[in-house]
Amino acid sequence: MARRKTKDLILDTALALFNEAGVAHVSTNLIAEEMEISPGNLYYHFRSKDDIVAALFECYEQEMLATLAVPGERLPDLEDIWFFLHSLFEVIGRYRFIYRNFSDISHAKRGLRRRFQSVLALKSHTAATFIAGLVESGIMQASTAERDALAKNIVLLTTSWLSFVEVMPEADSMGPEQAVWQVISLVLPFLRQPERSQLEHLTLAYLGV
Amino acid sequence: MARRKTKDLILDTALALFNEAGVAHVSTNLIAEEMEISPGNLYYHFRSKDDIVAALFECYEQEMLATLAVPGERLPDLEDIWFFLHSLFEVIGRYRFIYRNFSDISHAKRGLRRRFQSVLALKSHTAATFIAGLVESGIMQASTAERDALAKNIVLLTTSWLSFVEVMPEADSMGPEQAVWQVISLVLPFLRQPERSQLEHLTLAYLGV
Repeated sequence: MARRKTKDLILDTALALFNEAGVAHVSTNLIAEEMEISPGNLYYHFRSKDDIVAALFECYEQEMLATLAVPGERLPDLEDIWFFLHSLFEVIGRYRFIYRNFSDISHAKRGLRRRFQSVLALKSHTAATFIAGLVESGIMQASTAERDALAKNIVLLTTSWLSFVEVMPEADSMGPEQAVWQVISLVLPFLRQPERSQLEHLTLAYLGV
Repeated sequence: MARRKTKDLILDTALALFNEAGVAHVSTNLIAEEMEISPGNLYYHFRSKDDIVAALFECYEQEMLATLAVPGERLPDLEDIWFFLHSLFEVIGRYRFIYRNFSDISHAKRGLRRRFQSVLALKSHTAATFIAGLVESGIMQASTAERDALAKNIVLLTTSWLSFVEVMPEADSMGPEQAVWQVISLVLPFLRQPERSQLEHLTLAYLGV
């Protein structure tokens, strides 16, 4: 295998194992074993599990930056919001190991805490931009205090969803579609008609309800 | 010290240490040291840290059961909701070690996961009862899908709040008052006037805004 390819395969394998079992329960040896390569070969690419976590976090960061970039040339509309949430929960699902026990990030090394906070700050900024766009176009009516609270609740919900689902008995019925619906339901009551009904129907159709 | 008193003091000391440092970083020896009693004396009351965690979880459960009991004889009104949330976040704060990293509960022993789920189910039931009361009395207008989503968001927010705050940079400005406001802000847009403004003013006054 080419070096580059091996490195990518290590990351793919580690990501799958971290997502399945949690970082704490996966060793570099297990990753090497799963790939049927020697621990020495893995060590050639990554000196430690922390190195692998840091590399995966960087991939996650890049995908989040791309996802959270708001369309700048025009006001965001309802389909933008829907597509945005859908993409966001796809990234969160792909890197679920970060979110399953995200408060571990508080104790993480290598500035991961600070970088996770930057992602949250960006999430917050994007939510505020969407909300401001809806208010500006007259679709949403909400006071400043309500808009602040709404943006914070959106960030909290998108960040906490996976660890919340982990402890719920009905976890199976709480996939990404349900997550999108829960966020949309925060926004709906602030919308005027007919946009409110339109967004509700769009979302429920997506849920297959 | 009387036996009973020692046992209570062990629980108080353990609770303070767990809340401060997290269960993983507190040993029974540290608890005994903090109390200036011998490890043997502590062992007489609790055989292991798990025993102490289980005893504290039982205290938490009882306080939650008392807090989540809805007034049965009449429809709940806005002040009930406000008082209820205030009490709820008091209990959550008192047992913050359970919530700081609540997804650890998924891997906990002694049926704690199942018992935590029962608390969540009760929270959910209480939220639904309040919502139904507000709809029945005409104060709230919301479709069935919106009511379900609202109840779920309330349970998620109250459960995830502390672990969310842990990773936020502005954690200091996110105390229990802010938590109550975030939950109230979920409910507000579904209320008719003048109740909507009344509840907003009641909450903002409490926040000291």
